Amino acid sequence: MRLSKLFLPVMKETPADAQIVSHRLMLRSGMIRQSAAGIYNWLPLGLKVLRNVERIVREEQDRAGAQEILMPTVQQAELWKQSGRYDAYGPEMLRMMDRHEREMLFGPTHEEQVTDIFRNCVKSYKDLPKNLYQIQWKFRDEIRPRFGVMRGREFLMKDNYSFDLDEEAARRSYNRMFVAYLRTFARLGVRAIPMRADTGPIGGELSHEFIVLAPTGESAVFYDHDFNSLDIPADDTDYDGDLQPIVDNWTSRYAATEEMHEPTANGVPEGHKLITGRGIEVGHIFYFGTKYSEPMNAIVQGADGEKIPVHMGSYGIGVSRLVGAIIEASHDDNGIIWPENVAPWHVGLINLRSNDADCTAACDDLYEKLGRAGVDVLYDDTSERAGAKFAKMDLVGLPWQLMLGPRGLKAGIVELKNRATGEREELTPDAAFAKLAGGKG
Amino acid sequence: MRLSKLFLPVMKETPADAQIVSHRLMLRSGMIRQSAAGIYNWLPLGLKVLRNVERIVREEQDRAGAQEILMPTVQQAELWKQSGRYDAYGPEMLRMMDRHEREMLFGPTHEEQVTDIFRNCVKSYKDLPKNLYQIQWKFRDEIRPRFGVMRGREFLMKDNYSFDLDEEAARRSYNRMFVAYLRTFARLGVRAIPMRADTGPIGGELSHEFIVLAPTGESAVFYDHDFNSLDIPADDTDYDGDLQPIVDNWTSRYAATEEMHEPTANGVPEGHKLITGRGIEVGHIFYFGTKYSEPMNAIVQGADGEKIPVHMGSYGIGVSRLVGAIIEASHDDNGIIWPENVAPWHVGLINLRSNDADCTAACDDLYEKLGRAGVDVLYDDTSERAGAKFAKMDLVGLPWQLMLGPRGLKAGIVELKNRATGEREELTPDAAFAKLAGGKG
Repeated sequence: MRLSKLFLPVMKETPADAQIVSHRLMLRSGMIRQSAAGIYNWLPLGLKVLRNVERIVREEQDRAGAQEILMPTVQQAELWKQSGRYDAYGPEMLRMMDRHEREMLFGPTHEEQVTDIFRNCVKSYKDLPKNLYQIQWKFRDEIRPRFGVMRGREFLMKDNYSFDLDEEAARRSYNRMFVAYLRTFARLGVRAIPMRADTGPIGGELSHEFIVLAPTGESAVFYDHDFNSLDIPADDTDYDGDLQPIVDNWTSRYAATEEMHEPTANGVPEGHKLITGRGIEVGHIFYFGTKYSEPMNAIVQGADGEKIPVHMGSYGIGVSRLVGAIIEASHDDNGIIWPENVAPWHVGLINLRSNDADCTAACDDLYEKLGRAGVDVLYDDTSERAGAKFAKMDLVGLPWQLMLGPRGLKAGIVELKNRATGEREELTPDAAFAKLAGGKG
Repeated sequence: MRLSKLFLPVMKETPADAQIVSHRLMLRSGMIRQSAAGIYNWLPLGLKVLRNVERIVREEQDRAGAQEILMPTVQQAELWKQSGRYDAYGPEMLRMMDRHEREMLFGPTHEEQVTDIFRNCVKSYKDLPKNLYQIQWKFRDEIRPRFGVMRGREFLMKDNYSFDLDEEAARRSYNRMFVAYLRTFARLGVRAIPMRADTGPIGGELSHEFIVLAPTGESAVFYDHDFNSLDIPADDTDYDGDLQPIVDNWTSRYAATEEMHEPTANGVPEGHKLITGRGIEVGHIFYFGTKYSEPMNAIVQGADGEKIPVHMGSYGIGVSRLVGAIIEASHDDNGIIWPENVAPWHVGLINLRSNDADCTAACDDLYEKLGRAGVDVLYDDTSERAGAKFAKMDLVGLPWQLMLGPRGLKAGIVELKNRATGEREELTPDAAFAKLAGGKG
């Protein structure tokens, strides 16, 4: 993409209410623009990152055997009355009447909706287990939306729901999501630690939060030093096999958010160094048994004809929130530092002198060659001065910057900069091409 | 995907209110389930098709130089008051109050929202032209939703908006979308004809509807016989070049919906055979000048410092509606016949005797091999009887069916059926593999 064509409205000054760094950087770099309190427009740069996050989340859900569906944003109040949550949910639920005066709502979550699908479609134990997920926009009418996409009102979530015959099978479903989450966050380039969680308004017995570590995170967290070296489950993890050892390995160590932190009660083992850090919740998984299946009659017929309410779990990842969380975990004073897998482009190509015909020809040539090799390039072909170009490219945070100027080119040299480390290297255009095209993916 | 694992709740009987064939087939084949009047859950089969349609629409937008953004579903009423449409829109707009009693609405379209983005971000003529699109769910509270996803209340649309300095440039933007639409519908496997349209509530001067021909379409259409042989613009069409000849070629012939049909006034040329058919509107493009930019102050500074309200156009494709429209255009008594590009899977592999170890081994083997070769296969590995499997595969409508039974395998033979033509062919498993893997994509 040529920067001269890209719709990238960078902001010089950010509004005073942008208190946290990810909010400021997303506004400054033209990823988002606010539409209303807690409601954002995603502009091309932001949407590219959002889609990358979404794609990785989807790939890991598919790998774990979940099946994608899509439920509507607008739900009937009737279902929530069946589960007993319509009144309980309170003013965070955006409620409305349709033209026939039927009570509707913008789904803040989809337990009722998916339970309704399940009870209408599945009748026999033979059809279990099932795990259905969606990636869909939700609305929670926060009283004081803030922190940009980190606590917006309209936000994108991956939510899924497992259905099993009994608790033992439900725990297997829970474990599959636990492992999928470890892999998902690792692929997104962040370190996430599962922490035992309060089950809150969704209810239930077993629950973990996944917390991304970030120095600017929203809350304090306390965790065993060992987490820094635990292995992420591999690509070929067998989701039909026994995942309990992996889950045990990740849950037998101390890790707690501020609210759950009880160092004495939980007895941090002697000799284990406890780290105090800050974190951001990006995922939450629950097993809640028959909490919804019983009141809503989500019942299957067992092998002997008996009626069995299904055991359910639900599993959320804040997809739009993750974009903010990744920035909180990965930035410096100059801007964002995208992990490779979610970067909007792989390389920023900077023409240092766009009014120099030779320099521009060399840039155009490299841009075309990289494109043909499948390397995603953002090409700054504008006539801005070099300093402004450097600043913008640092702000936007692509993993690599490739700079071409007339002086270097005369010497057969271009400069390659690694955004994360700041390391710079001078090399020939061909060597730069080989490095970027080879280092891809 | 193994059918034994797929969440595919087929329906034996469809509800009486499913009046049209696409609605019935989508319910019967387990693509969708109704959630409320005009609001649907998309189940795995349906969602796969919806995503395929979305992908092709997106690819053609990108090719034509439009840039993807994503605007929220929930909008502020304030913007619609500025344009004057808040009261005018009427009861089709789903309105709501947030917890702070601010008037909000679920966007039925996004002219106001995008104009607000534009006026906040773009200040100079140098940043024009711009064309921004999104693929987003919308809500229109139809008084009597019906026809399944063809006239739902919550529906997925691709909508975009072009911004230009003057009418001449705006017409170039219009032409780019006109050409992109011709390519989009052709790639989706349907024949769509642009017809001059009434501009309706969006207003404006120049407008075309794109009508998919389908014998069961919603309205009568009248068009020149020549449309059956016009060329679709090629892959390498230069969107920066002059597209007027292509547009002229497609607009100089007679084509009209029932409402616009005036054979005498428009003078169908002598010797031109007029065809009477039926069609479904799947796209609509408008040029409406400064209708929104003037009241909403979407103004850029011209080369001489003068303030110029931008000339806008908007361009819609009904993405979820298209899924229904494609079925209306392509089905038979036994079920859906998916065009290759949108088919949820390329091949349905049928194990005719799942309790026969040799037959199952041969099926498993072919399933793995096809998967490794990148061919999307839905593998019916269930224990249902053969007749039920044939019926289900016909209903689901994948382009190819590959049937393996013990008798055939003993003779080294499998059967391959083309869903569209019904042609059957006996060949060796290797030859079937070669044909399917080679014929892919």
